[in-house]
Amino acid sequence: MRMYDIIAKKRDRQALTKEEIDFFINGYTNGEIPDYQASAFCMAIFFQDMTEEERAHLTMAMVNSGDTIDLSSIEGVKVDKHSTGGVGDTTTLILAPLVASLDVPVAKMSGRGLGHTGGTIDKLEAVEGFHVELDKNQFIDLVNKNKISVIGQSGNLTPADKKLYSLRDVTATVNSIPLIASSIMSKKIAAGADAIVLDVKTGAGAFMKEEEEAKELAKAMVSIGNRVGRKTMAVISDMSQPLGRAIGNALEVEEAIETLQGKGPEDLTELCLILGSQMVVLAKKANTLEEAREKLIENMHNGKALDKFRTFLKSQGGNEKVVDNPKLMPQATYSFDLPAKTEGYVSEMVADEIGHAAMMLGAGRATKESQIDLGVGIVLNKKVGDHVKQGESLLTIHANSSDVEEIKEKLYKNITLVDNEVVAPTLIYGVVTQ
Amino acid sequence: MRMYDIIAKKRDRQALTKEEIDFFINGYTNGEIPDYQASAFCMAIFFQDMTEEERAHLTMAMVNSGDTIDLSSIEGVKVDKHSTGGVGDTTTLILAPLVASLDVPVAKMSGRGLGHTGGTIDKLEAVEGFHVELDKNQFIDLVNKNKISVIGQSGNLTPADKKLYSLRDVTATVNSIPLIASSIMSKKIAAGADAIVLDVKTGAGAFMKEEEEAKELAKAMVSIGNRVGRKTMAVISDMSQPLGRAIGNALEVEEAIETLQGKGPEDLTELCLILGSQMVVLAKKANTLEEAREKLIENMHNGKALDKFRTFLKSQGGNEKVVDNPKLMPQATYSFDLPAKTEGYVSEMVADEIGHAAMMLGAGRATKESQIDLGVGIVLNKKVGDHVKQGESLLTIHANSSDVEEIKEKLYKNITLVDNEVVAPTLIYGVVTQ
Repeated sequence: MRMYDIIAKKRDRQALTKEEIDFFINGYTNGEIPDYQASAFCMAIFFQDMTEEERAHLTMAMVNSGDTIDLSSIEGVKVDKHSTGGVGDTTTLILAPLVASLDVPVAKMSGRGLGHTGGTIDKLEAVEGFHVELDKNQFIDLVNKNKISVIGQSGNLTPADKKLYSLRDVTATVNSIPLIASSIMSKKIAAGADAIVLDVKTGAGAFMKEEEEAKELAKAMVSIGNRVGRKTMAVISDMSQPLGRAIGNALEVEEAIETLQGKGPEDLTELCLILGSQMVVLAKKANTLEEAREKLIENMHNGKALDKFRTFLKSQGGNEKVVDNPKLMPQATYSFDLPAKTEGYVSEMVADEIGHAAMMLGAGRATKESQIDLGVGIVLNKKVGDHVKQGESLLTIHANSSDVEEIKEKLYKNITLVDNEVVAPTLIYGVVTQ
Repeated sequence: MRMYDIIAKKRDRQALTKEEIDFFINGYTNGEIPDYQASAFCMAIFFQDMTEEERAHLTMAMVNSGDTIDLSSIEGVKVDKHSTGGVGDTTTLILAPLVASLDVPVAKMSGRGLGHTGGTIDKLEAVEGFHVELDKNQFIDLVNKNKISVIGQSGNLTPADKKLYSLRDVTATVNSIPLIASSIMSKKIAAGADAIVLDVKTGAGAFMKEEEEAKELAKAMVSIGNRVGRKTMAVISDMSQPLGRAIGNALEVEEAIETLQGKGPEDLTELCLILGSQMVVLAKKANTLEEAREKLIENMHNGKALDKFRTFLKSQGGNEKVVDNPKLMPQATYSFDLPAKTEGYVSEMVADEIGHAAMMLGAGRATKESQIDLGVGIVLNKKVGDHVKQGESLLTIHANSSDVEEIKEKLYKNITLVDNEVVAPTLIYGVVTQ
């Protein structure tokens, strides 16, 4: 078998066999196939696509390129959730304790990452003492005992994906559905998921700006998951404006605490209930989505969801008192309101630009070396569709510098007010189950 | 400027500017742009093509990546001829002295190369003593004095093309019209041509198997040449069966000698007259193609063409007596006829397979290290359209081994006889001048 022939076959839009895909992934991982052949191959895939079968083979080849996490000693169906990423996306912080409160085992491997705010672990570190330095046995014991634990990424998971992603990143071949879908799914499967719930975002703040693209990616991932024996479903959700109200690390933990009590922003709460219901049903802790939803709402109101969050923080060294007093988390020195210049209806809050403003405040990392400022961020007081009077606050800026003029200007530029009433954007564009 | 953006732009089918193309070629030549970006870029070009303007910029960027030959001290219009390669293509050996006999200056840089037979220099080395080790001044003096000289490839010509071709060869990106056309044209232009006559082959023995593809390549090259100020035209000619009768090194020199006297095979003679007429007109040594053709035929019959070949061989150390006695060149030990198994009309002689048989005899190089056997080869006694009686010789094998059974079998397999009369294939499919 020769890599040349595999490139030529894909270039000519022929489907590759499992053996050919394994040959590529194994050879590329161990360095026998050079970068220049892999990048030409990725560009050929960009233009000629892959069949559903090829995508499944590619995913499993990447899973098998490194270590995999064995979660079989944890009782129950391990359901993982993955979001394609957006601005103010606090869902993981809420969903993990929420579904765990219904005995769904949450054994989450999480990361830090680059972006407008930190990753899940960064956010949780806003809670004093919280840490993810657990060994694998402690992690599994915690899940069996409390139904919830979060651990940092460790081990040599999907090295083929890491190597290939770095290459795609510098050869303009990132934006390919089969390559994105297999990359995401290989990481979830290697991390031990039995079932997977996907939240695919669409809109200005999402990787997939267009609804059709987001649906195509969702279908690709659901097809891969189901073909390789992992029950998978996807929700397509709006990311034209930030989700919820908080964008920032401590601010999002505070918002999660409110939402776990049923007092969170409407859109964030609704998305958590939709994703959570799917997770509960996949984990066989309810028979129908309606039943699951009722149980989740019940646990928000009876305090069990918040209790689970408290237990979780404490079990990993965190000061659980923040649950009752979120101001124990790092707070920014200054806060500034952004008053509306005119009366009107909010018609647009451009998600990625507002996320970028939060990053300028210090909430996220621009490079791997950047330090995150846990206290800073933005809290939206109005969202798309809301009425606002002249001088009323559109949002509050939490900053550790008093010089925020540039940021204010950026925010004004990305919030549009109009005279006529505006309908809030659709939150859920669709659900994909096969 | 970033290579990433240039790849993405081409991937999205946008035309690149001269500056972007120069940035790529300069960066790739000096090693600042890595192979993995160049190969992804070539694959994007494979799918998204280049405009005529981009192709011209790419060609000149490759010309400027290394040395160029200055032929300005040679009087007259320097017309170069290039063939895309085929089986039994003796045209260069004939055209060089033929047009030189009409005072068209022929300052040819030639190579060895891989293939069914050797390159032009290998063939000429069948003449005892002939060599191409001339310095540049000797070369130019010979052209000014005799109107003809051949020199080996020297200097650092089109290093960008060399590097890029090696990369394309292992990444399945060779077969792209803009990349093939710019590669060929950059070499001709760097070698100092004022005007260029192209012979683009089509059929089984050609790189471009389909007539349409060959026409597209011809148009691409003619457009590049004319855009960068080199008068260029192309002939599309048949390579479904070998050209002429001889395939082999000394055998082709012998065939060239016959053709220079007007006694050569009909198809080879006709193609030389068509290409030669174009060269003579481009060099302003005749006003019309008809006038040029008449003068060429005249010099075949009055001995001037052959005299020019004699002068040429002698001027570069060769034994000019071969012109009168070709058997002074290396001769194979054995010769075997291939008798027709039945009576019939020849309907097919598959060019590339017959060429491969000649290579198996030792006439060509399989790898750079292979030694060429100058005496061996094949001489066709019948061509497509000819009638043949049972037992009559289809061709003669000239070999230095008596064991040619495998080769005979291969040849039988690639020559088809049928009962009904067959029309000889069209020799010229078209002429492209703009």
